[in-house]
Amino acid sequence: MQRFINNPDEVVEDTVKGFVKAHADMVRLGNGNPRVIVARHAPVAGKVGVITGGGSGHEPAFIGYAGRNMLDAVAVGELFSSPTAKSFLDAAREANGGNGVVCLYGNYAGDNMNVKMAIKLAAKEGITIATVVANDDVCSAGPDEREKRRGVAGEIFMWKCAGAKAEQGASLEEVQATAQRAIDNCRSIGIGLGPCTLPAVGHPNFQIAPGTMEVGIGHHGEPGVRVEPLKPAAEVAREMAKIVLDDHSLASGTEVAVIVSGLGATPLNELYILHDTIETEITGRGLKIYKTYIGNYFTSLEMVGATLTVMALDDELKTLLDVDVHCPAMP
Amino acid sequence: MQRFINNPDEVVEDTVKGFVKAHADMVRLGNGNPRVIVARHAPVAGKVGVITGGGSGHEPAFIGYAGRNMLDAVAVGELFSSPTAKSFLDAAREANGGNGVVCLYGNYAGDNMNVKMAIKLAAKEGITIATVVANDDVCSAGPDEREKRRGVAGEIFMWKCAGAKAEQGASLEEVQATAQRAIDNCRSIGIGLGPCTLPAVGHPNFQIAPGTMEVGIGHHGEPGVRVEPLKPAAEVAREMAKIVLDDHSLASGTEVAVIVSGLGATPLNELYILHDTIETEITGRGLKIYKTYIGNYFTSLEMVGATLTVMALDDELKTLLDVDVHCPAMP
Repeated sequence: MQRFINNPDEVVEDTVKGFVKAHADMVRLGNGNPRVIVARHAPVAGKVGVITGGGSGHEPAFIGYAGRNMLDAVAVGELFSSPTAKSFLDAAREANGGNGVVCLYGNYAGDNMNVKMAIKLAAKEGITIATVVANDDVCSAGPDEREKRRGVAGEIFMWKCAGAKAEQGASLEEVQATAQRAIDNCRSIGIGLGPCTLPAVGHPNFQIAPGTMEVGIGHHGEPGVRVEPLKPAAEVAREMAKIVLDDHSLASGTEVAVIVSGLGATPLNELYILHDTIETEITGRGLKIYKTYIGNYFTSLEMVGATLTVMALDDELKTLLDVDVHCPAMP
Repeated sequence: MQRFINNPDEVVEDTVKGFVKAHADMVRLGNGNPRVIVARHAPVAGKVGVITGGGSGHEPAFIGYAGRNMLDAVAVGELFSSPTAKSFLDAAREANGGNGVVCLYGNYAGDNMNVKMAIKLAAKEGITIATVVANDDVCSAGPDEREKRRGVAGEIFMWKCAGAKAEQGASLEEVQATAQRAIDNCRSIGIGLGPCTLPAVGHPNFQIAPGTMEVGIGHHGEPGVRVEPLKPAAEVAREMAKIVLDDHSLASGTEVAVIVSGLGATPLNELYILHDTIETEITGRGLKIYKTYIGNYFTSLEMVGATLTVMALDDELKTLLDVDVHCPAMP
């Protein structure tokens, strides 16, 4: 492993320490729980708290989205593992301004279980946690089983819209409804060109043969829908756009926001190469791109690959997307 | 090559097209020259123009730093190759507000030659180009030959300070002096763990053996000062900090700004792991960190590795660093 790590079992510990040092103006560690990252301004009395949580190794997700107008607190799991129920609970405590907390997270078994436990524990303390479960990953289940799909980079849009909505003084139900609408409007697809390695394991737990690509790969190397010969970027981009847009079936004229994210080891110039064709495909269907994010927004350790996320916009989502944020991960 | 590219000879073409599509609110192509990126607001009458240029493959450098309070225009070279004199000239034309242009670039033979030619051509049109040549890469020459050192990520601080200074209405001489002071105050070091491949070549033109690291590697794989066994991240970070700070010899109490940049295929969490120790080393010498940037700010295709840049600050440089920028690469 050609990697910058210390003890493979302390990757998360070391990452979080460096993260808090680098961004001390925006974030701090949770009180008594180093597996919670809290935005400096939180909690805000009267404001609905907005939290998430997830496994580590996806940086800047999840921790990098803690900050003003975004997430108030983030529960931090081990690499590719759910945070504990206790960490979700502590994140809710840190974010609680007295009017409830929304927990906006991805659809994974461990996260579902731990969030449920945290909800019960929080209720005993008088903290109401409402949830929205992200399921934007198109290839992880068919259109008739959307509730089974995993959550991926669409979560960023969900956090951003909900964070801005909460800052406006919206109620718990309103923030939850906005987050739900944001993620319902998102579709994502991942393409894998090379695997990643959990440092404590020391070798990849899945393979992508040279000359091939995994279409629909998940954020932890979950198998996609098919393995294909690696094609020129323009063809890959067309395939990504087709999968996402066919599932979305948006009316011509709809405005959308786009994320093209690297998975960790794909250089930025290749994301721009993909976007050149993605933009052509999206606008070719009569859609209008309102905002574009290109970069490493949601990664999987040193996986080689890229994801595309398209969110359909309405007037309110546009307004919420335009609100400035002050968090480590976003311009 | 597990990469998202089309024709290997058109990587720059495709990158620039996708880049301009993604960031059309901030940048545009040069008039009649698709190897120049121009900030949307440029030129500004009466303002000193601020430009740079360099080889592609370092994204978000150089193009991502075009924007308000940063660079007015950027000349774009082929992968790891200098832009042409014509592109430097066109960048100067696009940035020219009538009071001269500073060209702030890195110390490489091709860039030096082409900028010199551009200066002569621009003079014929009545455009004065002043230059500052970045040489922050500590390991590329000894302390008695600093003028021979290459420019690397310190250029970002040079652009940022000069861009903000120009926006304040400073004269050509003042902007040049500020840029010179900014880069004089920078020291950088790179560590390579894995090579990168020019797509048209198809295989790496240098090797880093598994289990080793190249200390002092350049942005194009230029050999460093030594090859060592790969160590735990904390030891690597200490070595990086020592090389940079020993060359710098700053008085205790000095405030500094820090960039820890990935080289393309190193995941963000590892940069935070490095930073955890880098911060300890810097503050352990009595220095104070005023600002920290962690991420892929200046890369080398899909090279595995990281760089550290430390800039010593004075009151004015702090003020300039604090000015908000609106460019694709920086929060």
